[in-house]
Order: sequence, then structure tokens, then C-alpha cells
Amino acid sequence: MSSLAEIARICGVSIGATSKALSGKAGVSETTRQRILSVAAQHHYRPNRLVHAIQKGRSMTIGLTCNDFRDDFSGRIVEGMLEVLYEAAYDTIVISWDLCVHEGEKVLRTFTERRVDGLLMFPPGDQPTPAYLQELRTFQRPIVVVDQTFAGVEEYAFVGSQDYEGGIAATEHLIELGHRRIANIFHRKISTGRARVEGFRHAMERHGLPVRETWMRDIQNYGSEEIYRHARELLTMEEAPTAIVCFNDWVAMDVLAATQDCGRRVPEDVSIVGFGDLRIASAVRPRLTTIAQDPIGIGRHAVRHLLTQLRAVNQQEEELRDTPPTPVSDRLPVRLVHRDSTRPAVRQSF
Amino acid sequence: MSSLAEIARICGVSIGATSKALSGKAGVSETTRQRILSVAAQHHYRPNRLVHAIQKGRSMTIGLTCNDFRDDFSGRIVEGMLEVLYEAAYDTIVISWDLCVHEGEKVLRTFTERRVDGLLMFPPGDQPTPAYLQELRTFQRPIVVVDQTFAGVEEYAFVGSQDYEGGIAATEHLIELGHRRIANIFHRKISTGRARVEGFRHAMERHGLPVRETWMRDIQNYGSEEIYRHARELLTMEEAPTAIVCFNDWVAMDVLAATQDCGRRVPEDVSIVGFGDLRIASAVRPRLTTIAQDPIGIGRHAVRHLLTQLRAVNQQEEELRDTPPTPVSDRLPVRLVHRDSTRPAVRQSF
Repeated sequence: MSSLAEIARICGVSIGATSKALSGKAGVSETTRQRILSVAAQHHYRPNRLVHAIQKGRSMTIGLTCNDFRDDFSGRIVEGMLEVLYEAAYDTIVISWDLCVHEGEKVLRTFTERRVDGLLMFPPGDQPTPAYLQELRTFQRPIVVVDQTFAGVEEYAFVGSQDYEGGIAATEHLIELGHRRIANIFHRKISTGRARVEGFRHAMERHGLPVRETWMRDIQNYGSEEIYRHARELLTMEEAPTAIVCFNDWVAMDVLAATQDCGRRVPEDVSIVGFGDLRIASAVRPRLTTIAQDPIGIGRHAVRHLLTQLRAVNQQEEELRDTPPTPVSDRLPVRLVHRDSTRPAVRQSF
Repeated sequence: MSSLAEIARICGVSIGATSKALSGKAGVSETTRQRILSVAAQHHYRPNRLVHAIQKGRSMTIGLTCNDFRDDFSGRIVEGMLEVLYEAAYDTIVISWDLCVHEGEKVLRTFTERRVDGLLMFPPGDQPTPAYLQELRTFQRPIVVVDQTFAGVEEYAFVGSQDYEGGIAATEHLIELGHRRIANIFHRKISTGRARVEGFRHAMERHGLPVRETWMRDIQNYGSEEIYRHARELLTMEEAPTAIVCFNDWVAMDVLAATQDCGRRVPEDVSIVGFGDLRIASAVRPRLTTIAQDPIGIGRHAVRHLLTQLRAVNQQEEELRDTPPTPVSDRLPVRLVHRDSTRPAVRQSF
């Protein structure tokens, strides 16, 4: 790969003339242009996008902070993002959220110093620090928040799932199957968890069913052991629930494991509903009944909203930079996938 | 966020003087320097790394092509990479491999145009096109190939797992448990798959056990249906194997599903060994006996090898650019994790 300066040197012409020839501008003779183009091809000349970025004031890069890449949910969101960004000729700079949690301000500062044109942001489970929110406010470029929200980012565009509606759908599916004793292992700490359990409570209330608080289990630290313990406790209670609504498919996997370890069967003894329709949901036996989300769609929509904001910024540069972007909240539909982990209730007590 | 030019304008001094003040160079009075620093802090001045990149001929960015982000194996590799890159003040530009498969040359050209300092590369399952390999040769920057190799990239550094040794370990574990009738669902199309099945054949030979070809099932297209079909065929054969070595944990999940769907039990009727020790391996029941890899270590090692090459390039700029880097092949150890999907063989026929 050769630089502009090297091509100019080989051709024995100025850098200015070489630049004109390569970008198709006037100011060089046709013979010289052809010679320069030929040398450039021979020496694998590649334009320098860093120079273009400085000249145009647009780097054509997007920052992405991601909470993790550890299952196909966030993985597919990122795939959807990369696909649309690539079509729009934007490149992505990724910094994982682990770093952002610990050094959030520093990561944002890096994005600013790299002059990214916008930011795609998976928020963390925990509330970010004031220093982080302060740096975010000085960022002054389009931002789209993905999947989860937190206090302090309400002014930015958001793309996620209909978590509340999903919580209702999971619960009503069990109610339709005749279940009345329904437990819930939820995760209040994050916005998706709160919305799902609110949907659950709404559905129970709508159908006149009591929400028994000993069956409501809030996950403090999202990790297998605690979930497994909750599941065992629920399953071995004197008045055990006949069905469990789970925060997501990984929680459902832990409940399934606990059930089997207790010598109980899914769905014969207890029905379970997951959330996410991850790869694992149809790989495991019994296959999980779950709420399917559209992660690739979330990724694509998030980028489209970002591109819309970027176009607005580019059209009306100074004017719009001073006014915050209109916050969009775009929640993609979810749907119930009925598989083998749920079936009509047999035991009923009230 | 304000640019250098804006700070200069606000202070009523030249851009040159502003730059000197902010970078701590001589040439401005202490009073002026203090005033410029104060205005810069007030207006959230952030240096422009694109300018630094051009001035220094080093962008401090790394390209990453990734085959997918759909489970915790590649996810953890990427996490390990990002961690070490961040410590070394490098940022990452990611383009997913789906794009690379279809427009591989274009992706590489983008990396060149962005002037990335090096490339971390998860190769695809399929052999890349000649156009891709051609573009790779003109890339002329350090490259580290990760997890899998393919023809045409032997000259680059490689970091992966001891797949061959893992194949031996999985097989010898079963042999030690008394199994003689051992099947294998493998994946010859990719280098990791070839190494693992070679390890299997080696172990079988070493212990004087026959490899029955009807028990050797090669996955053509890595997807559930085909694997599931192979598993059902193996389980319902007249002379069925008592154990199955699986290409990875996802294959083991499909075998487990097929076993349960046939009314057979793991490990009572058939033992299975996975590969990878993915999150799913300990979440499922029975928990999978598997070969644990070290994905975070792979990510970290890959970046360390890249940084070593980058330091060499920076020290001896022109000289080294003309000589290809010494190819390193670094295979991280694997280890057997004995869980519940394997147990001593009961039925033996030869």
C-alpha cells in the first residue's frame, strides 16, 4: 500500500497534482492523469480516510459501547447494527461495556477524541456515575440508546423491545392454559426487567388473580446460583406455583435445571416461560416456550435512527448542534413462541 | 466539545499558540498558557486523534473481523482482545465476518483506508476468494489470525486452542470409562474441526480401537437439523455406539436433544462429550462433560502478539515493512471438565 506522497514521488509530480488526478479534478493533463492512475494501481494506492475526515469534519465512524457479547441476543443486535452501518459507509469503533462501567468518562472522551460522528450505547445494569453523565452531556453528537434505559439518558433516542407487552403475553399464555398459581423470577435492577414484571402484574390484575409476594423473586445479582436457589425454593414450597414466568431464557435454563435436580418435570409438574428466544430456547429439551424479540431489527432500527439524526446534523450543522435531538422511543414487537415447557395446569388450589 | 480552532478564536490567539499551550510546549507566556488551559477546560476541549494519527503515521486503531458474536466463545475472545487493546491505548474498528465473506476485499480496503495499524482476524469456515487473499497481501501491516486457520494465511501469526490435544483428551476420557464403541460428529470443513477429529483418530489408534466409518459423521453445513439427523441415526443403529464425541457444545446439545427425543438417556444409555465449555455446558441437565478452552486468554494473547509486531514495526519502520513478520503459532492449553454427560460404559460388544 502506498501513500499519496509516495505516488507523487514515483511519478515525479507534486502531491497537489497527484491528489487532483486521483480524485478526478481538473488541473492536470490527461497524459499525466493516466500515468498517475496507472502508478497508483500498480502500487496499491489507498486513499487516507483520516485526511478526508479532517477535511470534511466527519469521520464516518460510530462509537459502540456494548455490555457483553456473550449470547446471541446482544450478538444479533450488533450484527444488525454493523450491517446497516456498513451499507451507509460508516465504520464502527467498539469499546466493551465492562470498560465503560469502570472508566466510562474515559471511554466517552476517547470517542470524542476519535471524532466519532455518533454513539450507539448499550447501557449497563447499574446507574452510571455523575462523571459519566457529565461527559455524555458534553458529547454533543447523536446518541441512540439500545435495549435498556437508565436515569439521565431520557433525552436520547431509544430502541428496544416491547418488554411490558411481552410480560403480559407470557403471563396471559399461562392464564389461558388454566394456571392460577404463577410465580415470577424477575430483575428489577434493569429497565427491561422492570417493564416485564410490570406487564406480569398488570396481566394478573386484569384477570383477577392474586400476586403472591413469596412467589415474586427479584434477582439481585444476575448470576446462576441465586436464580437456581430461588427456583428450588419455589418448587419445594408447600404451596408451590404451577408455573414460573422467567426474566429471560437463561433464567428459564436455571429453573429447568433446578426442576430436574428436584426430581420434578417440566411441563408435567411446572410450566415455565422464558424471554428472548435465544438459540438455547429451541436447543434444550423440553424446548422453551418464550417471548421472541427481534434483536437484528433492534440493531438495524437503532442505526437508522442514528443515521436520521446524522443527516439532520449534516444538513443544518450549527443550528441543530445547539438543540437536543427529538427523543424517539421505538419498541419493536415481541411474540409468544409456544413450545414444550408449558402445558395446561392440572393442580389448582384457588 | 470545542476544537482547537474554537479555543484559539475565543482566546484571541493563533492556533499555533493554542496548540503549544495545550501540549505543554514552549513558545507562549505562562499567563497566556493559563488562560488557554482555562478556556479549554471550560469549553470541554478534546484533542483530535485523527490529526495525531496523520502526524505520527500511526492511527492507534486495530481492525477486527469477527465471524459472529453469537455465543460466549467468540464473545469472550473479543472481550479479551478489547481489554488488552484498551490498556495499550488502541481502539478497535470492527467489521463482522458476514460482510467479510461477501465483500472481503472491500472490508480489507476499508481497513487500509482507515489506516489501521494492524488486523485481528477470525477466519471464515470457507476458503476465502483469491481477490481477498490478494488484498490481504497488499495490506502490509501486522496480522494475527485467531481460532481457525486456512490456506493462504500461514505466513501470519496465529493464536488458537490445542484442538488436536483436546480431541485426544475427549476420546481418552471415554476410553478410560470403558467405552469401545465411540462415534464422532465432526466438522472437517474448518481447521479446528479437522484437528479435533485427527486427535480422536490418534487416540483410538493408540488404544487399538477400531474407528467404524458409519459412526464417523461429518457435518457439511453447521446447523442443527443435520446434526440432529446424524445423532438420531447413530442412536437407532442396530450396533449403536455407547459414546459420542462432539465437535463442540452446540453439537452436544443437539445430540442430547435427539437422545431425549428417542426416549434414550444421557449418560445411562449413551455418554457424550462436548468441546468449548460454553455457558450452556453447565446450564443444561445433564451438565456436559466437555473440553474447556480459554477464549479470554486467546483474545489477550492475540493482541499481545499483535502489539509485539507493532512495536517491531515502529522501531524499525521501513526495514521491517519489507520483510514479513515471523509467524508465531500459539495454541492455548485445553482441559477436560468431567461433568454428568459421561459415565462408565455398560454394554460392550467388542
